[in-house]
Amino acid sequence: MTGQMERDLELSPEGNVKLKLLKEKVDPYTGLWIMVLHGTPGSMLSRHRHYGQIYGYTLKGAWGYIEHPVWLSKSGDVVHETPGSVHTLYIDENHIDTEVLFFVWGALEFLDKSGNTIYIEDWRSISMKYIDYCNKNNLPVIDITYPKQKVPDVEFKHHPSKMDL
Amino acid sequence: MTGQMERDLELSPEGNVKLKLLKEKVDPYTGLWIMVLHGTPGSMLSRHRHYGQIYGYTLKGAWGYIEHPVWLSKSGDVVHETPGSVHTLYIDENHIDTEVLFFVWGALEFLDKSGNTIYIEDWRSISMKYIDYCNKNNLPVIDITYPKQKVPDVEFKHHPSKMDL
Amino acid sequence: MTGQMERDLELSPEGNVKLKLLKEKVDPYTGLWIMVLHGTPGSMLSRHRHYGQIYGYTLKGAWGYIEHPVWLSKSGDVVHETPGSVHTLYIDENHIDTEVLFFVWGALEFLDKSGNTIYIEDWRSISMKYIDYCNKNNLPVIDITYPKQKVPDVEFKHHPSKMDL
Amino acid sequence: MTGQMERDLELSPEGNVKLKLLKEKVDPYTGLWIMVLHGTPGSMLSRHRHYGQIYGYTLKGAWGYIEHPVWLSKSGDVVHETPGSVHTLYIDENHIDTEVLFFVWGALEFLDKSGNTIYIEDWRSISMKYIDYCNKNNLPVIDITYPKQKVPDVEFKHHPSKMDL
Repeated sequence: MTGQMERDLELSPEGNVKLKLLKEKVDPYTGLWIMVLHGTPGSMLSRHRHYGQIYGYTLKGAWGYIEHPVWLSKSGDVVHETPGSVHTLYIDENHIDTEVLFFVWGALEFLDKSGNTIYIEDWRSISMKYIDYCNKNNLPVIDITYPKQKVPDVEFKHHPSKMDL
Repeated sequence: MTGQMERDLELSPEGNVKLKLLKEKVDPYTGLWIMVLHGTPGSMLSRHRHYGQIYGYTLKGAWGYIEHPVWLSKSGDVVHETPGSVHTLYIDENHIDTEVLFFVWGALEFLDKSGNTIYIEDWRSISMKYIDYCNKNNLPVIDITYPKQKVPDVEFKHHPSKMDL
Repeated sequence: MTGQMERDLELSPEGNVKLKLLKEKVDPYTGLWIMVLHGTPGSMLSRHRHYGQIYGYTLKGAWGYIEHPVWLSKSGDVVHETPGSVHTLYIDENHIDTEVLFFVWGALEFLDKSGNTIYIEDWRSISMKYIDYCNKNNLPVIDITYPKQKVPDVEFKHHPSKMDL
Repeated sequence: MTGQMERDLELSPEGNVKLKLLKEKVDPYTGLWIMVLHGTPGSMLSRHRHYGQIYGYTLKGAWGYIEHPVWLSKSGDVVHETPGSVHTLYIDENHIDTEVLFFVWGALEFLDKSGNTIYIEDWRSISMKYIDYCNKNNLPVIDITYPKQKVPDVEFKHHPSKMDL
């Protein structure tokens, strides 16, 4: 059994990449959420602004930002995105299916063409999507938060064993 | 000379508390901004959601959240606000002028009565307010960021000496 | 009742400053411990190396590092200490009793004159000192950790109410 | 060209796993260093204590801690190690060559059988090992720190282009 939840969630209301949350790695105390973003060549994550820092590590394939046409992240590359940065992520057409491990602190604000807010994604919204997905597909709603002190308004039904060592 | 910028900025479009940014403590790499919020008894910071964690330390006076009527933070108290929490800050009527040191990571999203976004405050927006304030009042625009690697679209004219030891 | 534990702990085996831990602010997940260091003019915290970052905010008085003779931190100043920095803290002779709020991540390694390790202080060792102090003085051993998921080998007997909002 | 430095450094004075530092990912401001630890089945990283938090993500193979005989981390698993934890890492005998991506904040203290300090590894010591390795092998000493503000006593000769976007 792996640490990835085999559940493909939609991250963005407009993009067509998907993500897997990592088991037990949504942290309601620091706002960190860890996930593997994955997509086929040519797929996109629509334009968004970061309100916290991000580290990405490319597991396979290649991806970039439309706003930075020269730069491309390939297998084994690490990237740090600064809070306040705005960009549109794409999976490169000339490579294979792509997977990127992301450590995201805080929120992603998806933007329309005029720069207005469409939607804000954070540890809570992504947890809610995860719970909805499990309920719709008759999958167990395993607690993905860590540390385990109860969050008042997020309801998990199954509690995995301790992760930290 | 103290570490506080003697420049009272408006944090919120609707509230009436003010803040002083701390010298050299806006961090464009982690999204941290450090400030002293201050206000007279009865003043408010309008309803907002956090998209990052916050630590507060009450320097003097007393304050609380309207949504948590029993709890009051007094001189020497520390508080941690979790990402995703929503509340309205008030300065207690029965105490003196209040000062709170805040370490803020990420963004504050100010909300209207229906829960819609009015305005989002982060390290960049607060830096821009600071620069505007300095320009309007003929004050030197000292670089308040740390570490000092240049941020492409934020323009500081004066650079203080190194802070870290 | 304030957020400070009225319990003066010895931070260093050789120095003569003291510290108060802040209530509920030892974090076993990130390694953060928050404290108010205090001392009379002329007192010292012996030479040490940091293995994590630190933020300090001077509440009153003035202090500096022997290794940086010009620099002095006064009321309202903020300082960031980088991981790996080595220095000896002193309370200035020409000022009043001094108090400094410190956010410490990770460990302090106290060093002898040859640079060898005397002692390493971290969230766990300082929690143990706190428990010892309480037991010796018949004070309740209140859980100072946050978040509250149990740490296997640290035993608190009293659990305060929830701090985060 | 990938984000990994093709330079195998010894992490521990006693173990026989190796590591690759990730390009531009030693952070002197927060104490973070990012690396890929790799080893053949049966190899070890000797007993050590953490003085900061760690996240690990297993890229391939399988590994565990001798002190926790049941637990094994496999491809796709994530682990959080709490500050203060002590353990001995081993690469599982029944799997292939193993690679683990580690985000390490602060220091690792390697311990002898009596629990005494043998050696402390942090962002600075690992940077020094990297510089030594490059000099001995006539490889360019590329600046692996980020952000790029100069660190006084660490000397890099080549500066790569900007990483953050």
